[in-house]
Amino acid sequence: MPDAAGKSELVERISRRVIETQTWGYVSTGTRFKVFHTPGTPRDVWEKIDDAALVHRLTGVAPTVALHIPWDRVDDYATLADYARQQGLRIGSISPNLFQDDDYRLGSLTNVDRAVRRKAVAHIRECIDVMRATGSTQLSLWVADGTNYPGQADFRARRARLLESLAEIYSSLDDNMRLLLEYKLFEPGLYHTDIADWGQSLSFCQKLGERAMVLVDLGHHALGVNIEHMVATLLDEQRLGGFDLNSKKYADDDLFVSAINPFETFLIAVELTAAEDDPDPAVRDVAAQILYKVDQCAMIEDKIPAMLRSITAMQTAFAKAWLVDRDALASARATGDVVGAHSVLSDAYETDVRPLLHTVRSALGVPLDPIRAYAESGEATRRAVDRTGIPAGW
Amino acid sequence: MPDAAGKSELVERISRRVIETQTWGYVSTGTRFKVFHTPGTPRDVWEKIDDAALVHRLTGVAPTVALHIPWDRVDDYATLADYARQQGLRIGSISPNLFQDDDYRLGSLTNVDRAVRRKAVAHIRECIDVMRATGSTQLSLWVADGTNYPGQADFRARRARLLESLAEIYSSLDDNMRLLLEYKLFEPGLYHTDIADWGQSLSFCQKLGERAMVLVDLGHHALGVNIEHMVATLLDEQRLGGFDLNSKKYADDDLFVSAINPFETFLIAVELTAAEDDPDPAVRDVAAQILYKVDQCAMIEDKIPAMLRSITAMQTAFAKAWLVDRDALASARATGDVVGAHSVLSDAYETDVRPLLHTVRSALGVPLDPIRAYAESGEATRRAVDRTGIPAGW
Amino acid sequence: MPDAAGKSELVERISRRVIETQTWGYVSTGTRFKVFHTPGTPRDVWEKIDDAALVHRLTGVAPTVALHIPWDRVDDYATLADYARQQGLRIGSISPNLFQDDDYRLGSLTNVDRAVRRKAVAHIRECIDVMRATGSTQLSLWVADGTNYPGQADFRARRARLLESLAEIYSSLDDNMRLLLEYKLFEPGLYHTDIADWGQSLSFCQKLGERAMVLVDLGHHALGVNIEHMVATLLDEQRLGGFDLNSKKYADDDLFVSAINPFETFLIAVELTAAEDDPDPAVRDVAAQILYKVDQCAMIEDKIPAMLRSITAMQTAFAKAWLVDRDALASARATGDVVGAHSVLSDAYETDVRPLLHTVRSALGVPLDPIRAYAESGEATRRAVDRTGIPAGW
Amino acid sequence: MPDAAGKSELVERISRRVIETQTWGYVSTGTRFKVFHTPGTPRDVWEKIDDAALVHRLTGVAPTVALHIPWDRVDDYATLADYARQQGLRIGSISPNLFQDDDYRLGSLTNVDRAVRRKAVAHIRECIDVMRATGSTQLSLWVADGTNYPGQADFRARRARLLESLAEIYSSLDDNMRLLLEYKLFEPGLYHTDIADWGQSLSFCQKLGERAMVLVDLGHHALGVNIEHMVATLLDEQRLGGFDLNSKKYADDDLFVSAINPFETFLIAVELTAAEDDPDPAVRDVAAQILYKVDQCAMIEDKIPAMLRSITAMQTAFAKAWLVDRDALASARATGDVVGAHSVLSDAYETDVRPLLHTVRSALGVPLDPIRAYAESGEATRRAVDRTGIPAGW
Repeated sequence: MPDAAGKSELVERISRRVIETQTWGYVSTGTRFKVFHTPGTPRDVWEKIDDAALVHRLTGVAPTVALHIPWDRVDDYATLADYARQQGLRIGSISPNLFQDDDYRLGSLTNVDRAVRRKAVAHIRECIDVMRATGSTQLSLWVADGTNYPGQADFRARRARLLESLAEIYSSLDDNMRLLLEYKLFEPGLYHTDIADWGQSLSFCQKLGERAMVLVDLGHHALGVNIEHMVATLLDEQRLGGFDLNSKKYADDDLFVSAINPFETFLIAVELTAAEDDPDPAVRDVAAQILYKVDQCAMIEDKIPAMLRSITAMQTAFAKAWLVDRDALASARATGDVVGAHSVLSDAYETDVRPLLHTVRSALGVPLDPIRAYAESGEATRRAVDRTGIPAGW
Repeated sequence: MPDAAGKSELVERISRRVIETQTWGYVSTGTRFKVFHTPGTPRDVWEKIDDAALVHRLTGVAPTVALHIPWDRVDDYATLADYARQQGLRIGSISPNLFQDDDYRLGSLTNVDRAVRRKAVAHIRECIDVMRATGSTQLSLWVADGTNYPGQADFRARRARLLESLAEIYSSLDDNMRLLLEYKLFEPGLYHTDIADWGQSLSFCQKLGERAMVLVDLGHHALGVNIEHMVATLLDEQRLGGFDLNSKKYADDDLFVSAINPFETFLIAVELTAAEDDPDPAVRDVAAQILYKVDQCAMIEDKIPAMLRSITAMQTAFAKAWLVDRDALASARATGDVVGAHSVLSDAYETDVRPLLHTVRSALGVPLDPIRAYAESGEATRRAVDRTGIPAGW
Repeated sequence: MPDAAGKSELVERISRRVIETQTWGYVSTGTRFKVFHTPGTPRDVWEKIDDAALVHRLTGVAPTVALHIPWDRVDDYATLADYARQQGLRIGSISPNLFQDDDYRLGSLTNVDRAVRRKAVAHIRECIDVMRATGSTQLSLWVADGTNYPGQADFRARRARLLESLAEIYSSLDDNMRLLLEYKLFEPGLYHTDIADWGQSLSFCQKLGERAMVLVDLGHHALGVNIEHMVATLLDEQRLGGFDLNSKKYADDDLFVSAINPFETFLIAVELTAAEDDPDPAVRDVAAQILYKVDQCAMIEDKIPAMLRSITAMQTAFAKAWLVDRDALASARATGDVVGAHSVLSDAYETDVRPLLHTVRSALGVPLDPIRAYAESGEATRRAVDRTGIPAGW
Repeated sequence: MPDAAGKSELVERISRRVIETQTWGYVSTGTRFKVFHTPGTPRDVWEKIDDAALVHRLTGVAPTVALHIPWDRVDDYATLADYARQQGLRIGSISPNLFQDDDYRLGSLTNVDRAVRRKAVAHIRECIDVMRATGSTQLSLWVADGTNYPGQADFRARRARLLESLAEIYSSLDDNMRLLLEYKLFEPGLYHTDIADWGQSLSFCQKLGERAMVLVDLGHHALGVNIEHMVATLLDEQRLGGFDLNSKKYADDDLFVSAINPFETFLIAVELTAAEDDPDPAVRDVAAQILYKVDQCAMIEDKIPAMLRSITAMQTAFAKAWLVDRDALASARATGDVVGAHSVLSDAYETDVRPLLHTVRSALGVPLDPIRAYAESGEATRRAVDRTGIPAGW
């Protein structure tokens, strides 16, 4: 544990590490087999905002909420932004939807049919308008395009169409806006995905311009892939724009953060916190601007507690990463002490940071135990009683 | 290629190798993100039967169709069986549904709540009644139970409850009925599945009785698992009851058969055909009774052609497997000629069996090219025109 | 944290949880590309025993050491056992070697050549003699047999030969001896392994007799497999005999314990500690007799520190598992509180148990920080100076 | 099948598709557990050249052989090249070795120790001298650097050192030389590999210059990765330099080509042959210059037959790829006929191309069945008799 000054700085850092929650984390989602609804699920975007605001009140570190269009489409986005603001929230990143129209069966931005591509680009322009109306500066783009069978499509022709579509989108962004370009190994495409890995995403970003950045979803890799190494690489390339935070055991499971391997979350945080203190100001700048956004699907569990778990899990990972004795680590690395270097990480990781997080929460004026506070607040019951009728889903 | 007598026997064997199709292979299914509908999709079970009957008329080897309850629930199953019979079909295996009721959010046959378990068992008893009414003798049971998070449940308590439930189900079967017990690595359970692999399934079958058999779904294994070795093992244990035929690249992709690795399908067929000619009559008997059932989901492609592809792919795999020079293979194995043994398989595999399949189809009195025959038949257009309104889905 | 009585019991439990180390964990091993030697590596079995004894003196919980024959072959095993005893050690399990003779290129216990099978069985009988001479009661058997290419061998014929060989081995065991039968997905077999998963291993054990038990190597599964579920299943079947402790990211990496996912180690320990307190005495008995054996390969790192890390990691996992609030867990499970159940585990897991381990070590009279004690002891330097010449390897 | 003119062109194309074999494919290699020797294994580089020459005489399409330094180190490379030439061979690509010196335990080109990095660069310069002496123009570089444990090293510092080292190497190349930069998911590094995937490799190549190209080893990907998509992407980026041809089921198994999934080899060939006929001359040029090099390890099987199998398997894949009805494929793709597009590929794939390969071999003046010709030639026996003493290995 650091000394008092160090601890104070640490509390400060943890307090300032904000995590964006996403409206679709508050609603009912499921597998292809079934969507289970739980009582109190929001019925519309206003109630999703209510839940995000509650999560912010309970944690003090979730001041923005991501919208998904059209799931969160309203007539007047300024009113929506105002509504959020009144509850202490701002609108965060905007996610377009390129996978739920019948037109997109064989692709959106990559479709052989120019009309479908135009439609997809137009939809994203609508999202950019939403950004303008809500003060959002980050377009979080998942291109879900892919194919299901060998032979189905011409990979390179799709790539050319995708680049053309992305260039048009990029040119539509205002100067203060960023494009965060996601990648994913598979699903919904079951044979290939057009942007399948970080290399594909980086390659497009390089061609688009300096405000195009890679977005890393923690659940979108093949089993075994070393995510922290990739994160370090994208920091090195100064192209790491953001994260979709969740966890997985098998595929894109969208579980809450650190449910399966909290040590991996910690190792990722170790790379990120190192970059924040990098001697190179450009690297520090990249690290400072990273968007940390939850992207989870509460398929069977209570949604607000699950969201609180992810936020706490990220705070835990970052707190432990900031506790790493960097000098000892550098020394072990310099002398080739393999076991010793791992021990330095392990020492930080084994530290119980819950007292530290309590200090942070005291400083932020939020409950020490957000999940318990939620349970005891009556908010769950109130929601279950008030929110009758059809819950929102995807 | 074999001599005339051999070829004749081969034609005979291929002609007799029947493949069951499934009603849910004719309807619209999708990923958790979207279900795309295609024109001409059946709207009810009667139209699904129509499509299965058409597939049988086009192939001559798909005389049975599997039902899924409640998707195919009707008031009078005898009438449904008659309807099928009039079109040359019989009702095949019956699949219960243990994953789409809100009650099953935390498990069906394993649920901590006895009332939910009773409901699940009662549902399966309903399915057994359907079997009696339709003349079906195979209960094809997928227990989709699992959990999403570490800690969520007590594995061993669930196992005890599952065994109890299965024993009750097994005891409800008539003497001429079999229980085919499926397993699956993950999905919908994203942390654990109660029957996760062949070992789990076999262990339950052993405890239940000799008419409980393992069902192998080709898409339900971890990547890398050697399926043909497992098939051989289950034959050895005399517990291989059937297959859900499909293919995959990543997870449970449910693509049509051999879409990704037709050589693997062939290797599985090599084990099966070897068992059919085994010196041990008990092994031969197991092999002879195996249910070959397609279990695929046409997510973006035309459903009837996709079903025809699977049937053709299975015929191709079996035809090539029967062409394997077993003496040469035994000789290469006996002498430790590793490359030679692989070459024996490869020689059979590289053979173009399409002419042989044409002979088979001529003998069966069906079109030589079922997909083309379908395309030219006007059946697709007729369906698209007639089947207006809401298509059936899951 | 528990109260004083609870803490005292916990200290007692941790102190009694012994971990076996293995002689081949002290020598130089590597990948197929290169074996790197580090200074001070033992040159023979006596020096390996010295290192194992040092590890026991530093930890107090590693009183037995596993031998591998022929790597540890000596003329007089009674002398070897005496030598160990003088240093406070006993000989633990004995591992035969079925993979390093030229004769075994195409299999050992499964070989088509009866002479090779006889040789392999005779080798294992030699190992059983070593057991008698050293007082060992556990035969830890890894059957490395497998094939590299499709077609190479007849799976079922190999299975029959393997069962015959195993039956002969089993019948050679004394009544106080156990057979621990390992399984492994792949390597050295690159296409199939005869005992590839827990299901295969269990199936053989059932056929052999009640003293044949499954051994779980933590690195021998396909990616994604839920090991803790499998551990629970084997406990349920009363066939879990022991563990080869290590960790992995990709294949059978043989890293020190918890290097990649300490939460997974904890989850496994949660199942084991639950079984130790099971209402069913048969389950308790199985749990009580489990062999915990390290099986790691220090490929680039210092061997003794790596071994100390594994022991500490196992103590950490068990300590946290014993801290789980079982009542709270049962309650969360009973009420379907998915997030809450995970939180109960997480609460135990996030506890810093290092102070508790210090208490344990004080009670055992060993250094509080074994790795530091080793570093400061001069033992490393002494070994590097004394052990000139050719180090031992595989 | 194409018409006579088409067939003649096809024969021409297959005949000209040369495959490089590698000296280390003729010697004894193994797993970390054991290297099995087979009779007749070469004892030195001269005998490896003899075997490569024999393979070329038997196939007519393997006119070059890759060397690995220092495994193939000789005093006078000009003499070696002459020796090869006298047997109808040329020296192909040169592979340096950065993984077998004790100095490289913690890295070669990435090592924290500048002296080790200098040594590694100097070794590669030696290889470039070998290229000059032998007329080789391709440096095939596998950087085996990686780490085994979290924390062991600073990813970004290693990346900086690697780039610096590579830049120095690149600048040492003559103008007619290319750098082919390989990547690999894992092994020997068991936690991270510095060049882990195509994205990493591409990123370095872009920074080095236009003669730096990515080399794709078919066995170096995470399970599930779509290799043909990646090949198409690298063609699109005009950075695909070559292949290490082999196959795998689990990890980097180095089996002979198409042993596990020949359809995947075919799908890769479909991308390559499409690029050869691309409207864009730059893409055609990239495709035309690709190095096709076998990189397999005969661990238990006879080496020369295994090499002949790989060559035949590549010819089979290319022949079938050239048979694809491109117009039909384009048409199916344009109309969104998913099943139809797969059928077009399948039609080519199901074609038995063995008669075509016989025609090719007749035209080339080589035996119709190279493996049988080898078996009947007495070459195996001659080698077994002549090559007494210690066989060469890694």
